Amino acid sequence: MYQNRKLYEKYITKEQIELIHEYSMKILEEVGIAIENDYALEVFKKHGAAVDGQIVRIPRKIVMDAIANVPDEFTVHGLEQSVTIGEKHDPVNTGPSVPTMIQDFNNGGIYRDSLLSDAVNYYKLQETSPVVNIAMNSCTDTPDLDKNTDDYFTPQLALTLKSVTKPIYQVHCVNTENYKKADLIQANRNVLNFQKQFYDVWDKYVSLTNCCVLSPLAIGADVAAALIGCALENQPVIPISCSMTNLTSPPSLAGTITHDNATLLAVITLVQLIQPGLGCVYGTVTTPTDMRTIQLAVGSPESYLMMMGLIAMARYYGIPVRSGVGSSNSFDLDYQAGVDAFMMLEPGFMGKTDFMLNSVGSYGTYNLGSPEKMVLDEQTILYQKHINKGLDITAEKIMFDTIKEVGPRGSYLKGRTPKAYRQDHFFPILFNRDGGKPAALLESKGTLIQRASAEVEKRYEAYKAPDLTTTQKELLNQYLPAGYKF
Amino acid sequence: MYQNRKLYEKYITKEQIELIHEYSMKILEEVGIAIENDYALEVFKKHGAAVDGQIVRIPRKIVMDAIANVPDEFTVHGLEQSVTIGEKHDPVNTGPSVPTMIQDFNNGGIYRDSLLSDAVNYYKLQETSPVVNIAMNSCTDTPDLDKNTDDYFTPQLALTLKSVTKPIYQVHCVNTENYKKADLIQANRNVLNFQKQFYDVWDKYVSLTNCCVLSPLAIGADVAAALIGCALENQPVIPISCSMTNLTSPPSLAGTITHDNATLLAVITLVQLIQPGLGCVYGTVTTPTDMRTIQLAVGSPESYLMMMGLIAMARYYGIPVRSGVGSSNSFDLDYQAGVDAFMMLEPGFMGKTDFMLNSVGSYGTYNLGSPEKMVLDEQTILYQKHINKGLDITAEKIMFDTIKEVGPRGSYLKGRTPKAYRQDHFFPILFNRDGGKPAALLESKGTLIQRASAEVEKRYEAYKAPDLTTTQKELLNQYLPAGYKF
Repeated sequence: MYQNRKLYEKYITKEQIELIHEYSMKILEEVGIAIENDYALEVFKKHGAAVDGQIVRIPRKIVMDAIANVPDEFTVHGLEQSVTIGEKHDPVNTGPSVPTMIQDFNNGGIYRDSLLSDAVNYYKLQETSPVVNIAMNSCTDTPDLDKNTDDYFTPQLALTLKSVTKPIYQVHCVNTENYKKADLIQANRNVLNFQKQFYDVWDKYVSLTNCCVLSPLAIGADVAAALIGCALENQPVIPISCSMTNLTSPPSLAGTITHDNATLLAVITLVQLIQPGLGCVYGTVTTPTDMRTIQLAVGSPESYLMMMGLIAMARYYGIPVRSGVGSSNSFDLDYQAGVDAFMMLEPGFMGKTDFMLNSVGSYGTYNLGSPEKMVLDEQTILYQKHINKGLDITAEKIMFDTIKEVGPRGSYLKGRTPKAYRQDHFFPILFNRDGGKPAALLESKGTLIQRASAEVEKRYEAYKAPDLTTTQKELLNQYLPAGYKF
Repeated sequence: MYQNRKLYEKYITKEQIELIHEYSMKILEEVGIAIENDYALEVFKKHGAAVDGQIVRIPRKIVMDAIANVPDEFTVHGLEQSVTIGEKHDPVNTGPSVPTMIQDFNNGGIYRDSLLSDAVNYYKLQETSPVVNIAMNSCTDTPDLDKNTDDYFTPQLALTLKSVTKPIYQVHCVNTENYKKADLIQANRNVLNFQKQFYDVWDKYVSLTNCCVLSPLAIGADVAAALIGCALENQPVIPISCSMTNLTSPPSLAGTITHDNATLLAVITLVQLIQPGLGCVYGTVTTPTDMRTIQLAVGSPESYLMMMGLIAMARYYGIPVRSGVGSSNSFDLDYQAGVDAFMMLEPGFMGKTDFMLNSVGSYGTYNLGSPEKMVLDEQTILYQKHINKGLDITAEKIMFDTIKEVGPRGSYLKGRTPKAYRQDHFFPILFNRDGGKPAALLESKGTLIQRASAEVEKRYEAYKAPDLTTTQKELLNQYLPAGYKF
């Protein structure tokens, strides 16, 4: 059981939560949401919503009845490991999709396009990670991926299945470009069935799909198909809102929170109408726009605050909640990247949320990454988990007798390190804790990034490929990219 | 009025606070505190405490009566600016004393001893800082300071007074080495009178003095003299506890909090007995020991937690409270330095505390610093201040009419940037917010440290030396180090 410290209570009141709820209902009833999918429009019409072209206006009763079916928690199974997502459980963490560019510290930190081999490295790090418990399927369409086929999505998924025993998370990424063998809803169903077949598990959740809405107040064609495909295959989804203030959502934080809340409730309503009781997570990674650059400000205090507001809303509805991200706008693995990682991860660990995407490894406004940042962000997460453990204040732990025995000017250092010390303390790796002259430390220990690179190499060596059956290997071999087959 | 979000309430209960209080009283009554100063022992004896050699055992009534006199808030005056320290007010921030070593980014980031010219640069940055509002008097005894005199403390203070219009904070640093002209209590009184004379202000607080206790449960000779000198001259003090778990305080966090609380209450009792109503701040910068290296773990989750516990204790007694520090064990201005700065500053800004030492510029376990880190930590602090402002959730800010007008798939970007956007958003400098290819960004913007160096230069140019009277200049000239006189 993970302690939920509900830090969000420090940023929003019950009355404010109810105000946001009321206006969200008003938005769904009076403004409506656009959905680029006829099946979805039919579902809403059948349940009594007003459908006008692609705009659906949803009475609050339909919404509230539908979301009441969302389960408090659910489990996603992988090859050998599983994760349970819900308020009582540890926040579940994914790594990042391999980014479009890698900062390559084996080559002086130059920036280069990522390749399939980087995706494999990312799987190795996620598989061996002390904090990542669900691996992100990379669908980055790296330059070395053969795209002259009518399906270059499944080869990438096959590579993930080949590489990890942990469960798999996917960004909605089946689209008309990478999957031409079927219409989009069927394409999503095919992909989910491929996973079921691989695991030979047909009655449990074996996939978790990220579905990004299109702000303001819309669900795009690709994502609608992913949502419907998952609902029909009875596989859980995480609808995500990633609005940008003053561009795709209102200029105010309160307006953006309300907008996002309305949109997410509409999406969750849709999948619950199709498959009542489907595992759903209320997802938010909404971000301010920096109007000086018209950029998504990925590491920002406004993001932190909007996450707190949206976590409160999800808890109000009793829906498991997702936050993000250990990411940053920084294009270097520097001080800014550290500040942003700590700030952005905090709502997840102390907030708290039940799922976190991109919790390690990402920067450069999501477009850049490095294995080194993955292992460093892991340390930041372990810091936050230790903070969240909190203080153990009991008469025993106050240790009056020891204080009396040592007395003024005495020393506590004697014999073996006491149990109370070991219980209360955390030891980071990579982060320096040595003392002495900095030049000597630099000489003997190297830079933080050099230490991180060494740790990455250790992890690659520690990695063990999953032990697959002949049937599984044969299945994957039909799809695995050239050079990556068994 | 600064919003106190009382984050510490998430880490400690009322019952736990009372348990710590009870054991603290028991420590003071049964174990006692060692004080290396006869005057202090006499004061305690006179008020009814049991004095046995240098050990004082203090009945709880004496403690509670004495600390009841601590004012909720007080003001410290500088040449042109003043600060008020108390719960209702913004956290007051100092910069660091110039560290013993500087990471010199004008010379490729090499480490070198700091010099008096660095101290002057630190004053320039503190004077022009958007977050530092009380300047730290550096008493680092740099290699270029003439130490063949019977007073090489006042020359350093004179340099501070020459450089800043903001009020001045000093670490207790008058000692038998740097001040041989008088006994230690008188030495402290002389220094405070020098400040009164410089400002020609005799009835207000013109100095604020940091007094570090000696864990476990002791007040060393130098610090006792500083406390007594300040109390006699009616100038405020910040007693500080900087225990190291399992070395100078119990191995558990709860034990260390209790130990520190007892010690700080003893010190505050001492000065209140001498000067009832004296401005006092309950100060903590207690830190775990990393038993692998036997080092002070300056950036650590345990530090964060102990700060939360100690803030709660100070609020319980109604005493203004200090936290620290934007510092780190890192010996480089890197990702670890960023993570640690955010983590360590948070109890101050969202905790919240009334005063923060070393809030900018420090790393290398306090022994290292750079002007670049000062300006970067300022950004981190501005992030936290923006987070602490919180969410403004009102019907007006939810902007339903705008949401309705823009509708699904519309754009919020039109005309001038709205007031709601400007109210809710914060714009960092130095931290990257530009998009595009990272190599191109690096080429056009330089590294974060290069941008910080450019900002430091701008700040040196923007700095204006205080406008002093002839009398003030003559007074300082009697002491200013050679090469730094008017």
